[in-house]
Amino acid sequence: MARIKDVAQRAQVGVGTVSRMLNGSGYVAEETREKIEQAMRELNYTPNELARNLYRKRTGIIAVMVPNVSNPFFAEFVDCVEEDLYDAGYKMMLCNTAKAHNAELEYLDMLNRHIVDGVISGVHSLDIAEYRKVQKPIVALDRYLDEEIPVVAVDHASGGRMAAEELLRCSCRNILHFCGSTAVESPYHQRHQEFEKCMARRHCRTTMYELEWNRLDSQYYQEVVEAVFSQPFDYDGVFAVDWLAIECMNEALRRGYKVPRDICFVSYDGTFLTNVVEPRMTTIVQPIAGLAKEAVRLLTDQIQGRKPQNKSVVLGVTLRKGHTTR
Amino acid sequence: MARIKDVAQRAQVGVGTVSRMLNGSGYVAEETREKIEQAMRELNYTPNELARNLYRKRTGIIAVMVPNVSNPFFAEFVDCVEEDLYDAGYKMMLCNTAKAHNAELEYLDMLNRHIVDGVISGVHSLDIAEYRKVQKPIVALDRYLDEEIPVVAVDHASGGRMAAEELLRCSCRNILHFCGSTAVESPYHQRHQEFEKCMARRHCRTTMYELEWNRLDSQYYQEVVEAVFSQPFDYDGVFAVDWLAIECMNEALRRGYKVPRDICFVSYDGTFLTNVVEPRMTTIVQPIAGLAKEAVRLLTDQIQGRKPQNKSVVLGVTLRKGHTTR
Repeated sequence: MARIKDVAQRAQVGVGTVSRMLNGSGYVAEETREKIEQAMRELNYTPNELARNLYRKRTGIIAVMVPNVSNPFFAEFVDCVEEDLYDAGYKMMLCNTAKAHNAELEYLDMLNRHIVDGVISGVHSLDIAEYRKVQKPIVALDRYLDEEIPVVAVDHASGGRMAAEELLRCSCRNILHFCGSTAVESPYHQRHQEFEKCMARRHCRTTMYELEWNRLDSQYYQEVVEAVFSQPFDYDGVFAVDWLAIECMNEALRRGYKVPRDICFVSYDGTFLTNVVEPRMTTIVQPIAGLAKEAVRLLTDQIQGRKPQNKSVVLGVTLRKGHTTR
Repeated sequence: MARIKDVAQRAQVGVGTVSRMLNGSGYVAEETREKIEQAMRELNYTPNELARNLYRKRTGIIAVMVPNVSNPFFAEFVDCVEEDLYDAGYKMMLCNTAKAHNAELEYLDMLNRHIVDGVISGVHSLDIAEYRKVQKPIVALDRYLDEEIPVVAVDHASGGRMAAEELLRCSCRNILHFCGSTAVESPYHQRHQEFEKCMARRHCRTTMYELEWNRLDSQYYQEVVEAVFSQPFDYDGVFAVDWLAIECMNEALRRGYKVPRDICFVSYDGTFLTNVVEPRMTTIVQPIAGLAKEAVRLLTDQIQGRKPQNKSVVLGVTLRKGHTTR
């Protein structure tokens, strides 16, 4: 296998010049550059990326942590993040943290061990103290980790309000409201608070059902739906994340309820799942591609030593009407 | 920051001994090992993983290529592969190839550049000649790349036969059969051939609709369904991959057809999508976790220099009855 000194010899330049060109660490004249490239081609020389990374103290790899990609919200987020990272010259290492309790900690440690240049965390599981210890580029999706760590999230208060207004518009008076676990600090609580406020203002009855922490799988959603229907069910409106809203609607349909005549459904997230069910779900859409773009921008800014202009990015949500509201 | 020589000095051993221990490249007595570990703790020493990898000529990273994880089949496959790789001590670099035409080539090149130790390819896009050039650990999911490259797939012939028998059992006589693109060489063609054979043997009419190459998105499936329903639609049975079968069923429901009374549906893959629709889809289930496990096993065997006992692994499929067949 050809080595760097073989390339230098053939191109009739010094080893340092070849090294400068490969690492982009100094000026190399265009003419010299062409000679080196020709020599590399002729010798079929492949630079050892590991050695180059060691020199540059970067790997070009970003770790992205999500609970799992079988959840459509995270699947779409990961697809978008990977594309944006690719365009910015980075590769994505993906960690699904749902399966192993210590995986999150291990990936954070990879920042220290120079295996990844940065972390985008969409996980709500670890004690935030661990994040504070790591003085490296990190961006959080929808969670407050530390004052120093930028957060990307949507305007959940608006989302909660839009959902409430849509159900009120349909004259719903008795709402089942599934909300996220209050065990973690996250911007998403605003969605539920605002939803409740709107309903209270209009003297509308709501029943809040708090979901367990970090359970995002279909099996859990089915258990929740079973529990709900084992009690007298007299709701005329339901607000929940996409998958849970769908499981709940399907059970209602199986029990002979007509949607939206007897019950209206508004879901949250607006992933592709809301479009594969019949009737199509009315949903509050998070701009997932936008969240990914902002997360990548805030992270690459940190890596390249640019001070981010804003620590926190908040994007708007939209209502997409399906056929589960009247 | 502490360096390796500081650790050696504090532990009162040679630098070479510390290096041997970190790299696992030679014998280090238990007593010495403990002294070194204590010194590392006291000095808060973090080994530079890049340097260690350079020495060991491995990175512990596996590239996994799929079209995109917004497709539930690949989402479930990626979740399982990541978990199995994690258990085997590897990290997963994920490449979604749908967005960039040259991404597949670039990731193959990363094998040469010592950035990844192996590749699992679930992509059907690149000229297979490129794979033949790379004499490194590769495993293919459901595709023939080269005699030397192991393939993991299911017994598609059985799957096609099971689907046909289920529709025949429901007395379907006029079947719409969506099949994958014949532009690539893949084991999946056997599914369609066997399905057609079974139908012909029973003198059952089928209409084959060949899907475009590498189009796995919902927008395309909706276009296909629109095209199909713009023609006179007199089918009493449909066979297609999960997502397409669902889009087709939803359109039938919207047009007033009763499922399964008027039309029966059997889908292929058995991803979670088949369980989020009402009525639940009858489906041929690919053992996705098993495919992932075999892919990881065949790959790690290659990396560790073990000759695989079998080049090709074929797993069985099962019929899961939903409520879209009678």
